Amino acid sequence: MQAKNINVHYTEIQHYFKMAISVDCVIFGFDDDELKVLLIKSDLNEFKGQWSLLGDIVRPEEELDEAAYRILKSRTGLDQVYMEQVHTFGAVHRHPAGRVITVAYYSLVNIEQNILRKHSNELQWHAVKDVKDMAFDHQDILLSCYERLKHKVIEQPVGFNLLPKKFSLRELQNLYEAILDVKLDRRNFRKKFLSMDLLVDLNEDEKDVKHRPARLYKFNFEKFDQRKRRYFGIGF
Amino acid sequence: MQAKNINVHYTEIQHYFKMAISVDCVIFGFDDDELKVLLIKSDLNEFKGQWSLLGDIVRPEEELDEAAYRILKSRTGLDQVYMEQVHTFGAVHRHPAGRVITVAYYSLVNIEQNILRKHSNELQWHAVKDVKDMAFDHQDILLSCYERLKHKVIEQPVGFNLLPKKFSLRELQNLYEAILDVKLDRRNFRKKFLSMDLLVDLNEDEKDVKHRPARLYKFNFEKFDQRKRRYFGIGF
Repeated sequence: MQAKNINVHYTEIQHYFKMAISVDCVIFGFDDDELKVLLIKSDLNEFKGQWSLLGDIVRPEEELDEAAYRILKSRTGLDQVYMEQVHTFGAVHRHPAGRVITVAYYSLVNIEQNILRKHSNELQWHAVKDVKDMAFDHQDILLSCYERLKHKVIEQPVGFNLLPKKFSLRELQNLYEAILDVKLDRRNFRKKFLSMDLLVDLNEDEKDVKHRPARLYKFNFEKFDQRKRRYFGIGF
Repeated sequence: MQAKNINVHYTEIQHYFKMAISVDCVIFGFDDDELKVLLIKSDLNEFKGQWSLLGDIVRPEEELDEAAYRILKSRTGLDQVYMEQVHTFGAVHRHPAGRVITVAYYSLVNIEQNILRKHSNELQWHAVKDVKDMAFDHQDILLSCYERLKHKVIEQPVGFNLLPKKFSLRELQNLYEAILDVKLDRRNFRKKFLSMDLLVDLNEDEKDVKHRPARLYKFNFEKFDQRKRRYFGIGF
């Protein structure tokens, strides 16, 4: 009796199994003092000439995170990168092929590392602030991931994923200014970061730069991980 | 040629349209100085006697948020409540009926308002800290929504949605202590909240309470909305 009820229940919902799930990746990079996003030219007639995020349908036996890493890896060659699920977009008519709900992820990659060799006519880095008229609802998806990133970088040291391992304080400040779209006071910024005691002075200066070589630092992830985050403050 | 290519593209992905999407709602309430969650007894054999979140399959022409509000309204009668999408869970075998990806939402309701009349054997409020052995992956979903709530209440005044319109500072502190699962210093807590200048003293005391009647306050949402959040601080 119970078993039959269950079958009835499953039969009732069986006709709802008609949707597809996709994953869209907002791949952020940092270059020329600008926050960039990796986009691909759409090959669909509906969005002719428009740029879109890198995404794909999730396979029947594939986890969501797995799909996101597959897309990233196949497009950039990178797999050890910071990635975070942000929001799921399910507007009824968002995809011309049928009901496709998409799960948006963002990832942070170091452009210098190796990713630029994938640069082509179809696949290009764009300054986030200049991107408009994207295919599908990808403009909304980009915006929601960008908002999440803005929020995240002031709370967690995720921004370092966008920098080379060794960086100057100037580069670090440029990164924060680019992401947050603000001008920061140089002295306060340095004081703030040095006082957190999480930057390691590498006793090494920049090389082959046009300006006066600046001191290089790295972020101390071990120390950050060790610190218990006991601090708790309500503020709004 | 182009049009044909598109048809080919759509035909290629057509066989992926075999998944279902559901929405699961973590409905939080606050009562007896405890954070509660509204759960329903599962009617599936696989999860006999286990509690599950309130959820349902998303209809073919239904938006995700719409589905979440439908579930909330049908179960609690409430529709003007704080609700937020948190995370999407898509483990391959998470649902016995097939591939069902679920989008998790949490909402904050004031239990006193009217929701307790829906209380029944099948639908009950549970103290969040005591919930275990839930059906499906609902324990994970509850945890992820609870983590989001913890984070959110210290940044945004969402916690007030769980309180009556008029509340005492003691109730407010109890709420924060319950959500954050910490003991807070009474004096610091009051000082902190009063210094934000967002509580309105109603010149009115509690009635019909066993302890000494405390002063009642309400939160000034208008003032909060008017304040430009220009403050920006990096800290981790």
